Amino acid sequence: MSEQIAAVRHGGTAPRPEAEIAVARRYGTAEPAIAEWNDTIALLLAHRSVRGYLTRPLAPGVIETLVAAASSAPTSSNVQAWSVVAVTDPAKRARLAQIAGGQKHILDAPVILVWVADLSRAARVAQRQGTELVGIDYTDTFLVASIDAVLAAQNALVAAESLGLGAVYIGALRNDPAGVAELLSLPPHAFAVVGLVVGHPDPAVATAVKPRLPQEVVLHRESYDPSRDAGIARHDADTLAFRETQRLPAQSWSELVTGRLRSIASLNGRHVLRDTLARLGLPLK
Amino acid sequence: MSEQIAAVRHGGTAPRPEAEIAVARRYGTAEPAIAEWNDTIALLLAHRSVRGYLTRPLAPGVIETLVAAASSAPTSSNVQAWSVVAVTDPAKRARLAQIAGGQKHILDAPVILVWVADLSRAARVAQRQGTELVGIDYTDTFLVASIDAVLAAQNALVAAESLGLGAVYIGALRNDPAGVAELLSLPPHAFAVVGLVVGHPDPAVATAVKPRLPQEVVLHRESYDPSRDAGIARHDADTLAFRETQRLPAQSWSELVTGRLRSIASLNGRHVLRDTLARLGLPLK
Repeated sequence: MSEQIAAVRHGGTAPRPEAEIAVARRYGTAEPAIAEWNDTIALLLAHRSVRGYLTRPLAPGVIETLVAAASSAPTSSNVQAWSVVAVTDPAKRARLAQIAGGQKHILDAPVILVWVADLSRAARVAQRQGTELVGIDYTDTFLVASIDAVLAAQNALVAAESLGLGAVYIGALRNDPAGVAELLSLPPHAFAVVGLVVGHPDPAVATAVKPRLPQEVVLHRESYDPSRDAGIARHDADTLAFRETQRLPAQSWSELVTGRLRSIASLNGRHVLRDTLARLGLPLK
Repeated sequence: MSEQIAAVRHGGTAPRPEAEIAVARRYGTAEPAIAEWNDTIALLLAHRSVRGYLTRPLAPGVIETLVAAASSAPTSSNVQAWSVVAVTDPAKRARLAQIAGGQKHILDAPVILVWVADLSRAARVAQRQGTELVGIDYTDTFLVASIDAVLAAQNALVAAESLGLGAVYIGALRNDPAGVAELLSLPPHAFAVVGLVVGHPDPAVATAVKPRLPQEVVLHRESYDPSRDAGIARHDADTLAFRETQRLPAQSWSELVTGRLRSIASLNGRHVLRDTLARLGLPLK
């Protein structure tokens, strides 16, 4: 534990061992000089993806609470180009789990929230006005809608964790976006960006905070400096050490990254996304 | 105030007027039946974009704290395909403000964090390994990196607000992504998705929580239901009422949306994004 972390203060008063521990978990051996601490920051730093769930349903009103947090996220120009489909139906969750390559937690947890980049609502508004919407065919507009959906989803995740619930994103819905669109009756100009499984964590399944790249690698000052990659060696070592504690096969972060992006096969069918988006009414002009 | 909101509980105990007020601010006349409340949810629901700042710098360690929150956000397959450039230099901020169409708050606030979808780091890792990375040219990989950057940014925003700081996203950096890339020396395969201005809010500049679409419009159950658009009429009315309190020109939400997406001109130069991304080494195959 570095001197810098020992100096972390809460409200300018006593050092907080909680902060030291949380920062060390997140950054392995490469702790940054963070200066502030409160319960929300503690919550954010403690994030871990949960893949072991009880089947217990969420209490009434919880989904509405998460969506209120989602709706409170920033949105580009207040266009609010997102929707969310809450899927609890077991048959539908089974199909989503299949699309996602057999992720069992989609079946175990009571709900998966599917976050939709939704330009269809704008299209319907325009249709009712008798206006044509030239702008929805463009790449930036697709990106605006995807960003809106992700900002909303992340607020929902933070809200879920604040309630003691567990959550995990399911990017693998993009293995078959047309299949998801059909299953959930998404209209043209709508695209399921990411799923978010939410539920009560199974206390019998251990989870751990995963170490991330040192701040010196990701945080640049005034301009981008590729020489910051020097810190990757430490992260490779931290990742190997972490995976050993989790009894996972030895693999450094550098090996993980190149393994994921090496070939078309490693994209798990997502190499056709652009054509699929065009078929879904999002031509990415 | 509806009966449903009056039933909001904290820890299953007393009703919390704070929750009632926060939910009513966020949803105008269309309050959902939210069930849970805590300080983090209160923080998320109270979000407002801040565009009036004091020039006072951030305290030492605050940027590191925000980036620790950002690093703690989920990331697809742990690839961590994002970076952030913290820009405090006044000349650089002046140029970013110019790119963003003259947004004065980029000059007033002490820092703008520029969130980068960064596949260049993976490319450098592969180069050092002597591997070719076929996967980074694909649309899904671009989306993965953009989502990683946005998840990180949103955690930073929540952390900033938890410290009493103000923040606002600057999507208008995408008016000229090549200009931003040049200014910040971004390498190929990197793209500034969004800026985030952070600073001390000017107490002399009033801000207000902006009403959002009713939950019945954005939250679908089991499958997407376009008839939920019926709730847009209420949001149009709420938006008109809100804009009147802010002394803004009368414009309904429906008018705002179609105005933003009606024409190529309304995209503020962003209709060329796909070509620009290709020039930045992100061909969106």
